[in-house]
Amino acid sequence: MDEFASIRHWTAGRQTAEWQRRRGVTLGIGDDAAAVDLSLAEAGLDGAGSLLIAVDTMVETVHFAEGTMADEDVGYKALAANVSDIAAMGGVPLHAVVSVSVPSGYGSERMRRVYDGLYVCAEQYGIAVIGGDTTSAPSHMVVSVTLTGTVETGKELRRSGARPGDAVFVTGPLGMSAAGLHLLLREEAGTPDSEYAAIVAAHKRPKPSVLAGRLLLKSGACRSLNDVSDGLASEAWELAEASGLRIVLEEGRLPKSGSLSAYAAKAGIDPLEWMLYGGEDYVLVGTVESGGADAVQKAFHERGLPFYIIGKAEAGEPDVELIPLPKNWNGERASGRIARRKIGKRGYNHFDE
Amino acid sequence: MDEFASIRHWTAGRQTAEWQRRRGVTLGIGDDAAAVDLSLAEAGLDGAGSLLIAVDTMVETVHFAEGTMADEDVGYKALAANVSDIAAMGGVPLHAVVSVSVPSGYGSERMRRVYDGLYVCAEQYGIAVIGGDTTSAPSHMVVSVTLTGTVETGKELRRSGARPGDAVFVTGPLGMSAAGLHLLLREEAGTPDSEYAAIVAAHKRPKPSVLAGRLLLKSGACRSLNDVSDGLASEAWELAEASGLRIVLEEGRLPKSGSLSAYAAKAGIDPLEWMLYGGEDYVLVGTVESGGADAVQKAFHERGLPFYIIGKAEAGEPDVELIPLPKNWNGERASGRIARRKIGKRGYNHFDE
Repeated sequence: MDEFASIRHWTAGRQTAEWQRRRGVTLGIGDDAAAVDLSLAEAGLDGAGSLLIAVDTMVETVHFAEGTMADEDVGYKALAANVSDIAAMGGVPLHAVVSVSVPSGYGSERMRRVYDGLYVCAEQYGIAVIGGDTTSAPSHMVVSVTLTGTVETGKELRRSGARPGDAVFVTGPLGMSAAGLHLLLREEAGTPDSEYAAIVAAHKRPKPSVLAGRLLLKSGACRSLNDVSDGLASEAWELAEASGLRIVLEEGRLPKSGSLSAYAAKAGIDPLEWMLYGGEDYVLVGTVESGGADAVQKAFHERGLPFYIIGKAEAGEPDVELIPLPKNWNGERASGRIARRKIGKRGYNHFDE
Repeated sequence: MDEFASIRHWTAGRQTAEWQRRRGVTLGIGDDAAAVDLSLAEAGLDGAGSLLIAVDTMVETVHFAEGTMADEDVGYKALAANVSDIAAMGGVPLHAVVSVSVPSGYGSERMRRVYDGLYVCAEQYGIAVIGGDTTSAPSHMVVSVTLTGTVETGKELRRSGARPGDAVFVTGPLGMSAAGLHLLLREEAGTPDSEYAAIVAAHKRPKPSVLAGRLLLKSGACRSLNDVSDGLASEAWELAEASGLRIVLEEGRLPKSGSLSAYAAKAGIDPLEWMLYGGEDYVLVGTVESGGADAVQKAFHERGLPFYIIGKAEAGEPDVELIPLPKNWNGERASGRIARRKIGKRGYNHFDE
């Protein structure tokens, strides 16, 4: 099978031309490039749209391994990571192009499973898969996805818009994916306890927050936004540096799921470590003007979506600080001032030596 | 240095925001996604434009190696391969996003050289580099580039438009890159003879044919188009299959450079092998309606661009055939009918086992 036959085998019959056309696609997989007429894309925007573009790459042994992710999970998550980037701009995802470099020994059926998972994510988020490139590799699979999206022109939610006094929020629980990975690496070929299904699912099949991003954009109150791909601490630092201010988080307000707490207790690990430094949660973190926070929270809750105020933005040099739980915590807020703790970035770092 | 600091180090100061804005870019590298207002892009189109998207990936040891390509060449060519895809639609390239997975031992300065070369290509073709992703890898570098472009809506030049009677053309000499690679693999640490500079340059720094693609589109006579990334035989097969007809090539008309002939003679290799099956030439191959071929050729020559008629399209099952040079070739066309030779695809094939 040549490259085109392979890509046809993995992609044929998954999305009709008619369905793709509603995303503006006039020429899909199979030529030198795909063609899109953005004026045809039914994205539900309120006014003229700009194009968004994001790219994310997953490398076998670095981002996934046989024991932790099935082939379908790899395809799903490679696209989901990009969807999260579009969500973090307040945008609507539209089109994906997929590049895979794959050891020849992996075989075509394994690649088909990768595409199976990728199309599950594409269907959930209404994304047209419009191009692909496949190359061989001497070892380990690399899956790189580029995703377009659209957003009302000039309205995209950047990292740089936070202002002192803003409330800092997240749109879902933290540390789930890191805890799930920890569990998967410890389990030896067994099925994880159903008690921990939520953290395992968070690692394998994260659910990017497109609807949350749209609600934030439409609220008019959101001033800065980022997605938690490299851990809350790292993402809060990005907001702080891009906006030129200090982010202060309150430990007691960080959303912690029951599944995470239970597993952390069993594993003997402080869950705060995962919540601050665990990546790939793909919830959104950002700031809203403090006067608008209640209305935004209400809009989220009306749609059954979580929304947590976890801190505030303050004037100052870029920094991230945490107000820890008091040692003698007894359910009531301590009266005295609690010393803040500086939080380092500890993001993912490729050139540390 | 964290990922963002690295990408800033490789990209900062290369293209001003003002310059990028003329390509429609309203938000470049540094946020979750880039934002583009296509209505601001000065692409010189004649009417409303559609978006084109192409992706191409280069894998160390598969597409390049230390002995054949400098780091700068790798960056240049990773983008150039995509530019060729946009050219093959008759489009104008606009924006690139770059994903690199790189062994940590390669170091940041080596990556900077990859970006140096990539920006050389970007400058030559007026491409705004608007996004990047960097991941570590256990071994070998993988560079994946996604490129957008634009083309007059509904006018893109597809592979499927050829009709019986069309003249088949190419826009430059064939087999150059493959011959250059052959030379580079044989040379041992020496500087290649200047006689062969053209084939070496064709391999390291191919020049995609954006202007040629635009001329073809504007001519109104071009019915199908492809770029020679996997070799003439393979690309002609793609045209034949997409259009449902037979492509007949004449060996005597295939453009062969002096540099190629000289090196083939020295190496004792039939240059036809490289001309039919050597990839990465990034010239364009396609068909024009026969009545318009002269006018197109004239338009090319007026701009100093080569244009060669190399065969014709015939009604029939998809096939590619070659009319060989007669054995007793003496400068005049043989009077008798010469038996055609069927030409196999022999394109690049990832899942042959």
